[in-house]
Amino acid sequence: MVQIGFDIGGSKIAAGAVNDENRIIARREVPFPTGTSYKFIVEVMASMKEELLRASKTPEQELSSIGVSIPGNLDEASGTIINAHNLQFHNVPIRKAVNEHFRDVPVFIENDANAAALAELYAGALRGTKTGILLTLGTGVGGGIILDGKLFNGGMGHGVELGHMMLMQYGPVCSCGNKGCVETLSSASWIVKEGRKSIIEYPQSLIFSRADGDMEKITARMVIDCAREGDAVAKDIFDHYLDHLSSAIVSCANLLDPEVIALGGGVSRAGEFLFAPLRERVQKKSFFHFPYKIVPAELGTDAGIVGAAMLARNAGQR
Amino acid sequence: MVQIGFDIGGSKIAAGAVNDENRIIARREVPFPTGTSYKFIVEVMASMKEELLRASKTPEQELSSIGVSIPGNLDEASGTIINAHNLQFHNVPIRKAVNEHFRDVPVFIENDANAAALAELYAGALRGTKTGILLTLGTGVGGGIILDGKLFNGGMGHGVELGHMMLMQYGPVCSCGNKGCVETLSSASWIVKEGRKSIIEYPQSLIFSRADGDMEKITARMVIDCAREGDAVAKDIFDHYLDHLSSAIVSCANLLDPEVIALGGGVSRAGEFLFAPLRERVQKKSFFHFPYKIVPAELGTDAGIVGAAMLARNAGQR
Repeated sequence: MVQIGFDIGGSKIAAGAVNDENRIIARREVPFPTGTSYKFIVEVMASMKEELLRASKTPEQELSSIGVSIPGNLDEASGTIINAHNLQFHNVPIRKAVNEHFRDVPVFIENDANAAALAELYAGALRGTKTGILLTLGTGVGGGIILDGKLFNGGMGHGVELGHMMLMQYGPVCSCGNKGCVETLSSASWIVKEGRKSIIEYPQSLIFSRADGDMEKITARMVIDCAREGDAVAKDIFDHYLDHLSSAIVSCANLLDPEVIALGGGVSRAGEFLFAPLRERVQKKSFFHFPYKIVPAELGTDAGIVGAAMLARNAGQR
Repeated sequence: MVQIGFDIGGSKIAAGAVNDENRIIARREVPFPTGTSYKFIVEVMASMKEELLRASKTPEQELSSIGVSIPGNLDEASGTIINAHNLQFHNVPIRKAVNEHFRDVPVFIENDANAAALAELYAGALRGTKTGILLTLGTGVGGGIILDGKLFNGGMGHGVELGHMMLMQYGPVCSCGNKGCVETLSSASWIVKEGRKSIIEYPQSLIFSRADGDMEKITARMVIDCAREGDAVAKDIFDHYLDHLSSAIVSCANLLDPEVIALGGGVSRAGEFLFAPLRERVQKKSFFHFPYKIVPAELGTDAGIVGAAMLARNAGQR
């Protein structure tokens, strides 16, 4: 059987046909048609489905489910997107609309962070775990939680907000309105912000010269590369980042006592330069002396498609 | 049927016979015989059991389980107390020892924080909840988590350390070796410490006069009472405490999305003077706009006995 997973993002709609070994056997991608109605988007999805079945030579009757990953808050019960700011979707009855176009196949909808965690559970770094955490370190900090071998979407079904655990009382203002959330201090954006601030004070730094003194050119990757090359200013920023991220990990691990924590998102691509010192700090700060594993997430940009395709299985319907 | 619950603490052993309506129908208490072996303590427990059955007029065959609440870390699989510092117990095979004395009745052992959470679940403030959190605000900060209507003891069974979530990066040193844990800023001890520091700087404060200028006399309750009476120094301490505690609550609620958070321990006895402003701050800081309830725990000093008596039910054996 084949599942189709849709990963709807602010800039594009990616979709893939996924087989029973959790491998993507055909894929399609179109730019997200910003500003159009959700009904048009569902029509685009329907034609992508046809193309994927054709490309993967899958007869219609072998398609067993459709999954959709959405960057926003969902109301599970009604299948409504409450808010997806990047898509300009508010109170959109997405499941109903999708069902109308995909009548014969069950349709599952989930937010992107949860979908990514599911992808890691069934086909990536959290495979076989009973309790696992995916933390994605990008513009913001998100992720998902696996409890008892299944996706945990919060006790009341509102989701889990790993990026909005507290990290620093009286810390920087967060987009959620609170102060000092994990996201404000452990995201790639924090590294970018500190990199930008640094070139005002340290025009002699490697960051300054790599960016030609232009703040806009500074990326998290650039700062991390400068740290790797030994620049003192960049090393100091990265050192503080490790402090923050290790605290964030210890905080949720002291609460949930997981087997594995997988890190995804742009920052995680720094590899062992990040993971080796991170593990050391986590070990020092952790309450439990039984160490859990801290590993890179495996799915990368495929997480949305694969996770969406796994939704039927998580629901026990496959 | 009747369950007997033992609440073993550093200063006393309290025990009660608990009926099927979760009510204590007989109770006994003896000082904890510090420095003796665990075998002697189990003998004391055996004689307390006999007294409780007599006092509650319970025939032996109506005793359906024994539960024991221990202030320490347990290894579930082997029934061993890994560490209970207050009892001077280390690597004690407690279940085996208890089983030898209570041959015909199943024996359950749990740490005190989890037992208290169970007591609230079956007979207190968390009754009927699917997802609930008990946070106890005493010398330290502890508590337990109910997920899916059952006790959650960490993904790997090492427990949940609510007091060792992060609250302030680079904050005060914690007994666990980390810095800025919830416990360092949200316990009764924090209020005591700040009260003591304040009398050095503010000899005109009400705290100073209530304590006769003697740091040793200062308690959390005294500082809270002074705040209630309008003393500016005490109000400032209490105000910061509310800041910390509301952040701690929001942090775990943003992660777990619970229905109810119950607060126990000494500080919670401040009543609405604590709860009213706390709810307001939590609401402001919370990621979710669906409010959860924040209520006082109900069991008080009976939590250990009642929780221990509920262990068989939580294990599905009653």
